[in-house]
Amino acid sequence: MNLRLQLAYDGSHFSGWQSQADGSAVQDKLEAAFRTLVGHRIVVHGAGRTDAGVHALGQVAHAEVPDGRPAAAWKAALNGNLPREVRVLASTRAPKSFHARFSATGKVYRYRIWTDPALPPHEIGRAWHLPIRLDRTRLREAARHLEGRHDFRRFSANRGTPMENTIRSLHHVRVRGSGSLFELEFEGDGFLYRMVRILTGTLVKIGSGQEPLTLLDQLFAGEGKPGRAAPAHGLWLVRVRYAHGTAGRRTGTIP
Amino acid sequence: MNLRLQLAYDGSHFSGWQSQADGSAVQDKLEAAFRTLVGHRIVVHGAGRTDAGVHALGQVAHAEVPDGRPAAAWKAALNGNLPREVRVLASTRAPKSFHARFSATGKVYRYRIWTDPALPPHEIGRAWHLPIRLDRTRLREAARHLEGRHDFRRFSANRGTPMENTIRSLHHVRVRGSGSLFELEFEGDGFLYRMVRILTGTLVKIGSGQEPLTLLDQLFAGEGKPGRAAPAHGLWLVRVRYAHGTAGRRTGTIP
Repeated sequence: MNLRLQLAYDGSHFSGWQSQADGSAVQDKLEAAFRTLVGHRIVVHGAGRTDAGVHALGQVAHAEVPDGRPAAAWKAALNGNLPREVRVLASTRAPKSFHARFSATGKVYRYRIWTDPALPPHEIGRAWHLPIRLDRTRLREAARHLEGRHDFRRFSANRGTPMENTIRSLHHVRVRGSGSLFELEFEGDGFLYRMVRILTGTLVKIGSGQEPLTLLDQLFAGEGKPGRAAPAHGLWLVRVRYAHGTAGRRTGTIP
Repeated sequence: MNLRLQLAYDGSHFSGWQSQADGSAVQDKLEAAFRTLVGHRIVVHGAGRTDAGVHALGQVAHAEVPDGRPAAAWKAALNGNLPREVRVLASTRAPKSFHARFSATGKVYRYRIWTDPALPPHEIGRAWHLPIRLDRTRLREAARHLEGRHDFRRFSANRGTPMENTIRSLHHVRVRGSGSLFELEFEGDGFLYRMVRILTGTLVKIGSGQEPLTLLDQLFAGEGKPGRAAPAHGLWLVRVRYAHGTAGRRTGTIP
């Protein structure tokens, strides 16, 4: 059976999504739980390869599992064998053709920034503490300018593959939050390596007045210098979209 | 100068608000920071004596401090000498007559419950994980029934003082959240020791169908058995109200 998993994890406890030699990645934890349950390796494919420190509210994965256990029962079985910092929120049967990564039609990422000199304790490890003045109107303008189909090569940390297609569509870039909280929400058909963090670093340069809005057009044209990648712990994979309905919907809020 | 502080803290790192012999309370951390800054003891008075594990988004405190430093500058000075799990969000000059506890006209507490069998990792230590079926409509009915002026003696853990006035007014009891998240918000003129946690434990008994709604009237009449106090880590002191405007307003949200 092709099993589809909806997952949440606290990125500060793992060395990212993708399997590591020391078994410290989220994928490793899931594969270890499967091994305990079925006695052999089951490969888990994730929709987004989140870096170390990046959080997930709605990661999606799939795995080919033996029949016999109802799809919904895998949720409790896996959670019983996982560290509590990674949870299966739902397990459902997927069509044979479903692939968490290749079937995905879009993703939603959120980047959280706190600008007051005092970071509220419940934001530790969950937002980038950046005590500078950000102009919300300027940020909104820059965010709108990012929307659409562009060459995001300059916004990728992956410089080793010049032949890669680096054209992507950002459907929406929203600036939410109020007061000291800035939540940048990026919705697009696909994201290059570190793209959201570099977009955030660049938006911050513009929102603080250090760079003009025109920097974005320069970068789209393959020129100019983007901002430094924002730290991993402010980034959240919120949702993964598929053609028929959505998956990876976030479940609830935290005060 | 009478200094008023707005504070947030992560309750899991401290043995509650009130000073302990081992210096592990939030009050101790504040008084230690003041001592470092001025060289002698300064007594800090808090609005609410939160138990160990209880979180604060908007605690208020006051202290008599030497003149010389502007009120607003105490925020950074104190934060530079506090563990990062307690933060001064604002420091302002208060009238001589202002007392964080005795001047308070009301408080808002929130109790957070997560009912799905899988607790999302970002809710660890921030919500009571109670994987049972709660009837939102029944909970709302019971919440409404709590509103008003009642004798809450049966909802207090403080059984040693029979002469104490245990009549309090609950202005609003709201049931928020959706899906697996239940947020019970209690707004009142004052709260007895452990009152919110015992109210929550009792609401859960009614919301799960274990007890009838009429239990509340019994308890108001000094009869019957309340539910057990809900665990501390689901409780949040959200706001403290004063006659002229409000203080301790929460600042922002967490995804």
